Amino acid sequence: MVDYKDIKVIGFDADDTLWVNETYFREAELEFSKLLSKYETPNKIDQELFKMEIGNLPLYGYGVKAFALSMVECALELSNKNVSPKTIEAILNIAKDMLNKPVELLDGVEDVLKALSTKYRLILATKGDLLDQERKLEKSGLTPYFHHIEVLSDKKESNYTKLLKHLDVKPSEFLMIGNSLKSDVLPLVNINAKAIHVPFHTTWAHEEVDEKETNGKSYKTIGSLIEILNILK
Amino acid sequence: MVDYKDIKVIGFDADDTLWVNETYFREAELEFSKLLSKYETPNKIDQELFKMEIGNLPLYGYGVKAFALSMVECALELSNKNVSPKTIEAILNIAKDMLNKPVELLDGVEDVLKALSTKYRLILATKGDLLDQERKLEKSGLTPYFHHIEVLSDKKESNYTKLLKHLDVKPSEFLMIGNSLKSDVLPLVNINAKAIHVPFHTTWAHEEVDEKETNGKSYKTIGSLIEILNILK
Repeated sequence: MVDYKDIKVIGFDADDTLWVNETYFREAELEFSKLLSKYETPNKIDQELFKMEIGNLPLYGYGVKAFALSMVECALELSNKNVSPKTIEAILNIAKDMLNKPVELLDGVEDVLKALSTKYRLILATKGDLLDQERKLEKSGLTPYFHHIEVLSDKKESNYTKLLKHLDVKPSEFLMIGNSLKSDVLPLVNINAKAIHVPFHTTWAHEEVDEKETNGKSYKTIGSLIEILNILK
Repeated sequence: MVDYKDIKVIGFDADDTLWVNETYFREAELEFSKLLSKYETPNKIDQELFKMEIGNLPLYGYGVKAFALSMVECALELSNKNVSPKTIEAILNIAKDMLNKPVELLDGVEDVLKALSTKYRLILATKGDLLDQERKLEKSGLTPYFHHIEVLSDKKESNYTKLLKHLDVKPSEFLMIGNSLKSDVLPLVNINAKAIHVPFHTTWAHEEVDEKETNGKSYKTIGSLIEILNILK
C-alpha cells in the first residue's frame, strides 16, 4: 500500500497526461507515409522513420523540431535522394501544423489541478521543446495551477534526481503523475519517489516497456486522471 | 555606482559568454551561402536566411534545430523549389556538425566560476535547446560549478521575472552576466536586477540594440570575464 501523506510537490507530465499529443504524431506519420508512398510500403516507411528518430535522439532530443528533421532525413534516405523539393516542403508543413495545433485537454484535468493546487506545489515536468510546451500550457489555460515548467532533456533516474535536488525536496515528498511507465513512473519508483500511472490509449514505441521491468515495482495505475482525487484526499 | 553586496544568485549566459557559439553560426551561414550560390548572391542569401529565422522564431524558438529547419525552408524558397536532395542533405549535415562541435571555453571562464561558486549560487541561464546546452555544459567540464541549468524560451523581462520567482530571490539579489545587451542585460536592469555586460566579438543581428535603448541604464561593461573578480570581491 503506497502512502502519500508526505507528498509536497506533484510533477505532472504534459503530453498525453494533460492534453492530446501522441495522436498528432500518429497522424503526422500517416501523412508522411502517404507523401513517400511511391518509394516504399507504409509499414517500411513507419519502421524507417522510427529508426531515424531513435538514431537521432542523442543529437536532437525530443519534440516536434527533432521529429521534423528526422522526417526530412528519412525522406532523403527512402527516396535514394530523389525526393522532390515539394515533398520536403510538405514535410516542413506537417511539422508547422503540429506546432500550431489547438490544445485538447483530457478528461478531468482542470478539476484535478484546481483541487490539488490548493494543497500541493504543482509543476509541469516534460521532455518536449520548452517553447512548444510553454505555448501549449498558455493555450490550455492551465498556467495558474502550476508553479513553473521543468523541461528535462530526458526522463531518466539521473534527470529526476537532479530535479529533486533543484526543487529542494526529498524523494518521499515528490509524486509524479504521467502516462509513460518508462518516463513518468519507473525512474521515480527506482529513486524512492512516488508515481501514479495514467495510461493514454496510444504509446510511442520508444516509451514501451517490457512487463519484466514493472514486476514488483510499487506504483498505482488509474484509468482516468480524475481518480487522483480519490487517492490524494 | 552599482552595488553588488546583496547578490545571492548569479546567472551566467552560456553561448558566447562561457564558450564560443556565434562563430559557428557565422561559419554555418557561410557554408549555406556556398551551397546555394548558383541561385543568389551571398548577400541576398544571408538576408533571406535571417528573414526566415526571424519569421520562424515565434514557432521554432532559438537553437540549432530551429536554425536547421529555417535553412531547409530558405533553400526551397531561394531555389524556387529546385534545390537538389543532395543540397538538403548537406544542410542537415551542417546542423549535425554544429551539434557535434567541441566546446571552446572563453578566456578566464574556469577561474571566474571557481572563485564565484564558493560565495554565490551559480546558474546557467540560456535560451538554446536544453539538450544541446546540457551537452555543451557536460563537454565543458564546468558542471560542478553550477547549481543547475535554466533554459528560457526567451530572455525578456517576463521570462526573468518568472525565473526570479521560481528561484525565490529578489531582483536586487540577482546578477546576470552575459554577452547580449538585449537578452542578458537590459531586461534585468528594467526589472531592477543587476547585470554585467561582457561583449563577444560577433553579435547576431537579432541581438543588436539601438544606442537609445541603453541610455541612462545602469549596468557595467567589462572587456573580459576575468574582470568580474575585481568587481565581486
